[in-house]
Amino acid sequence: MKLLRIDTAKRTWKFEEMGAYAGLGGRALTSRIVNTEVPADSHPLSGENKLVIAPGILTGTLAANSGRISVGAKSPLTGGIKESNSGGLVSQKLAKLGIGGVVLEGKPAADAPFMIVKIDKDGVSITDAPGDVLTDNYAYAAALDAQFGGKACVALAGPAACQCLKASTIQFTDPEGRPARSAGRGGLGAVMGSKKVKAIVFDDKGAPGVEYADKEAFKAASKKWVDILRNHPVTSQGLPTYGTAVLVNVLNEAGGLPTKNFRFGSFEHAADISGEKMHEVITARGGKTTEGCHPGCIIQCSQCYLDAKGQYLTSGFEYETLWAMGAATLIHDLDIIAQMDRVCDEKGIDTIEMGNTIAVAMEGGLIPWGDGPAALALLKKVGTADPMGRIIGNGVVFTGDALGVDRLPVVKNQSMPAYDPRAVKGVGVTYATSPMGADHTAGYAVAQNILKVGGDIPPHGKQGQVEVSKALQIATAAVDSAGFCLFVAFAVLDSAEALDVVADMLTARFGQKFTVADILGLGEAVLKDELAFNARAGFTKKDDNLPRWMREALPPHNVVWDFTEDELQGAKVG
Amino acid sequence: MKLLRIDTAKRTWKFEEMGAYAGLGGRALTSRIVNTEVPADSHPLSGENKLVIAPGILTGTLAANSGRISVGAKSPLTGGIKESNSGGLVSQKLAKLGIGGVVLEGKPAADAPFMIVKIDKDGVSITDAPGDVLTDNYAYAAALDAQFGGKACVALAGPAACQCLKASTIQFTDPEGRPARSAGRGGLGAVMGSKKVKAIVFDDKGAPGVEYADKEAFKAASKKWVDILRNHPVTSQGLPTYGTAVLVNVLNEAGGLPTKNFRFGSFEHAADISGEKMHEVITARGGKTTEGCHPGCIIQCSQCYLDAKGQYLTSGFEYETLWAMGAATLIHDLDIIAQMDRVCDEKGIDTIEMGNTIAVAMEGGLIPWGDGPAALALLKKVGTADPMGRIIGNGVVFTGDALGVDRLPVVKNQSMPAYDPRAVKGVGVTYATSPMGADHTAGYAVAQNILKVGGDIPPHGKQGQVEVSKALQIATAAVDSAGFCLFVAFAVLDSAEALDVVADMLTARFGQKFTVADILGLGEAVLKDELAFNARAGFTKKDDNLPRWMREALPPHNVVWDFTEDELQGAKVG
Repeated sequence: MKLLRIDTAKRTWKFEEMGAYAGLGGRALTSRIVNTEVPADSHPLSGENKLVIAPGILTGTLAANSGRISVGAKSPLTGGIKESNSGGLVSQKLAKLGIGGVVLEGKPAADAPFMIVKIDKDGVSITDAPGDVLTDNYAYAAALDAQFGGKACVALAGPAACQCLKASTIQFTDPEGRPARSAGRGGLGAVMGSKKVKAIVFDDKGAPGVEYADKEAFKAASKKWVDILRNHPVTSQGLPTYGTAVLVNVLNEAGGLPTKNFRFGSFEHAADISGEKMHEVITARGGKTTEGCHPGCIIQCSQCYLDAKGQYLTSGFEYETLWAMGAATLIHDLDIIAQMDRVCDEKGIDTIEMGNTIAVAMEGGLIPWGDGPAALALLKKVGTADPMGRIIGNGVVFTGDALGVDRLPVVKNQSMPAYDPRAVKGVGVTYATSPMGADHTAGYAVAQNILKVGGDIPPHGKQGQVEVSKALQIATAAVDSAGFCLFVAFAVLDSAEALDVVADMLTARFGQKFTVADILGLGEAVLKDELAFNARAGFTKKDDNLPRWMREALPPHNVVWDFTEDELQGAKVG
Repeated sequence: MKLLRIDTAKRTWKFEEMGAYAGLGGRALTSRIVNTEVPADSHPLSGENKLVIAPGILTGTLAANSGRISVGAKSPLTGGIKESNSGGLVSQKLAKLGIGGVVLEGKPAADAPFMIVKIDKDGVSITDAPGDVLTDNYAYAAALDAQFGGKACVALAGPAACQCLKASTIQFTDPEGRPARSAGRGGLGAVMGSKKVKAIVFDDKGAPGVEYADKEAFKAASKKWVDILRNHPVTSQGLPTYGTAVLVNVLNEAGGLPTKNFRFGSFEHAADISGEKMHEVITARGGKTTEGCHPGCIIQCSQCYLDAKGQYLTSGFEYETLWAMGAATLIHDLDIIAQMDRVCDEKGIDTIEMGNTIAVAMEGGLIPWGDGPAALALLKKVGTADPMGRIIGNGVVFTGDALGVDRLPVVKNQSMPAYDPRAVKGVGVTYATSPMGADHTAGYAVAQNILKVGGDIPPHGKQGQVEVSKALQIATAAVDSAGFCLFVAFAVLDSAEALDVVADMLTARFGQKFTVADILGLGEAVLKDELAFNARAGFTKKDDNLPRWMREALPPHNVVWDFTEDELQGAKVG
């Protein structure tokens, strides 16, 4: 594996040995590089920030569900370190090209043109970006496809990223060539945009592929791995049938579905935006109810959603999006929400941040509660010349500040996902203490609190929440470093041998003995890098809590947020 | 003295004894109340924030230049504690009414109407605000005047404040009834606006006035005080002749006039925006070159600026404004800059923050460098329905974030005033370490660095800067608590007996012995309150520094910012 460094100011590039970064991949690599090389007090849009794109250490192998890509930088949204994770084809292509990480460095002059970076087995070529860089993503991806050939696999800075907005994503093309997969959170698209990189095209034709120290041993372990995933009800039945949208009804029942900007824990129209409803609509219109975000996925939680005329509308249409565009805003028209998801992919904006932002815009009186067409129109302004688009595209806090709204559901400036932390306290601890800001994927205690996977911790009490969040934060950091999809965790949590099997795959891949302790040690090391960066950036325990108004009781269970600052510190790796 | 608490949610009010706050006034009172009563982690626009308006402890007496008003709250701009200081008539009227401080508490519902609060000798009356609250300030003040009678003395939440924007001021009417005096910095207008208080009308008819423990002794000390001010060249000649604008040429010569968003220390067109030029224009058009911001001012640094047709255009047109709208943006048309000053008073936005914001908008390519008409048009959008106005009116960081600009001249999110901190390092230390954020008035070491008043400390070296900033921060906090205009400091710094005379006035006013040590002790106590609040709000020494790009050399002297984090901590009262 080599590291590819690209100087965006000079448009030069070089391959380097991994050196001190050897053995790292995914989030472990992005966070280590950012913590080592980016000054913590630099501006996220300055030439001192670096954008790191890294496949996991198992990516490119036969291991099922190991094709996720990690993107890291100092976050324009949180001001702290960020790793954002996506599906798509990029990760496996990078791994097969023998590239452990791509590092975008420097910054071109303000009036320099945007560029397209193409990476293939012969190296890198950099050309001026064609056309209008504020073109919507599907059309721009199609143009790149025409230029670079059959389903060009790209990482795309969409219109929002090119305007350096804080909610901007990096969109990755999926197996169908659609830019529907997002490194969504933390505004990392803006870092790519600030470096004037419109797109990176990845071509692994003729690439050597991944080597194994012991291929037979890998195959054997890999088969066990598939069995573990296929034997767990969540990864073999729940997710493949309804996708993540299965959670709408589950959370609504639990009183933890944040409704009307986190005022209520249940939504009277939840059924209209549920996984069951989505499954019915997709089936009736002839769409696909299951789809994987990368080759080798055996969970297939994604889908292909058609409009009423049977035309493709969107995919990668997740629970988080349904909730954010739906319950959070009181919109409950599935087709409108699907269009909003598509617009988010077109503009390259995070659906979680955008749903919360629309709720805040409703809070501020800009548009009425529950008004889907108005919300859709607002989203369409992002990435255009309309200054309102620059407000909305900068997310919850920015929009709240623009409109004078003080009820902002954020931690470290990043807005909360689809689980009310008062009613699902384990994930609340994760929101509060993760170096990422409010992030459900950083320590998904919804498993133990609600789904009763990996344990049973009652969601309303404080008991056990800090401990489970900490353990999950460590495990998740390891999962994100391996290149695994987070959903493997459901099976891992309920399987006594799963981590041993992962260790066996690592041993067979690298020829050096890995243990379960090594895997967890890797997770801890990732968090230490991240916490160290954030401390140097000025974060303190004051930043590790939920907003004061979360002390307000949440119906229907009238639960409140009642952790002290010091209690929460227990969830951090020390 | 009594404390007047107004519950803006219930529209009720009550007078209280000063109690634990007895003996405090001005900034000492505002900062003590905010530190004691406002949760440091509350949202600045929430009902938990309080807006405190307090006359100084010598305000309302015969003491020359003691009529300044202090306004305090948790700042929407910095997120820390803030005291902002203004001239106008309010302070003396409050003192004569026997009111030591007005505290606006709570917060009405989002759809509640704005209110007018009238304070007179009989108490308080609260009525709905007439007309459109987004009306420009001069017209709104005139309407209030018509409603409440002859030159109604008001504190006004302008259009920007009613939209809760972070650069919004509270405008106070001057002796001519014009809303030309600003509590400008820190966005305190937004706190007033969030509480739906459009204006406070102050009427001291029939008020008892201020009492003296020993009036004859006060008169004697007060006469000495006038002599001290009249004998210093800055307060008797420099400021009365050219106003603060005298500094344009001085700083330009010193290479410390921040030009083109702090790229250069001198401006080729400085003469066009100088005090000398302004004096010439005002004289030619028959305006007034001297004017006081409150009765009892003997410095008279203000002016009345007429347009080319001889019509009143603006007043309170300061050095800071000339620089911010001029050198910072490369605009050098004095009439355009005067119009920009007027628009800032009309909308209720801080001229320092706005000049820097326009420079950042130019940096981001929104309008061309030096384009006065475009800048004026941009300012006019503030406080209107145009979303661009909400961006601009939220100041430098917000506008930078909207436009993807990373060169932001701020400390604690508040933009820097008219002295490049690399070329005037003493004031740079104040910018970095004041609990207020970048603020020249918090410790004006320009005196020792450039004007050679109160000492001679070479401006480019590090020697002596931390010490002088600390001493000035303490003295300034005392000045702001007494109700004095900061400019008395020039005379005080060069007079061995001045502080004794102030102590004598305090003794004669209150009948309890004051010493110079007591005065400085008061200043220290103010800073301790402010630093304690900020620490609880999550500020650390990481926040006490200038942006990284200030390490870039500043022409013409090629000076850089080279203080370490730990060196800077020496300027803080500990």
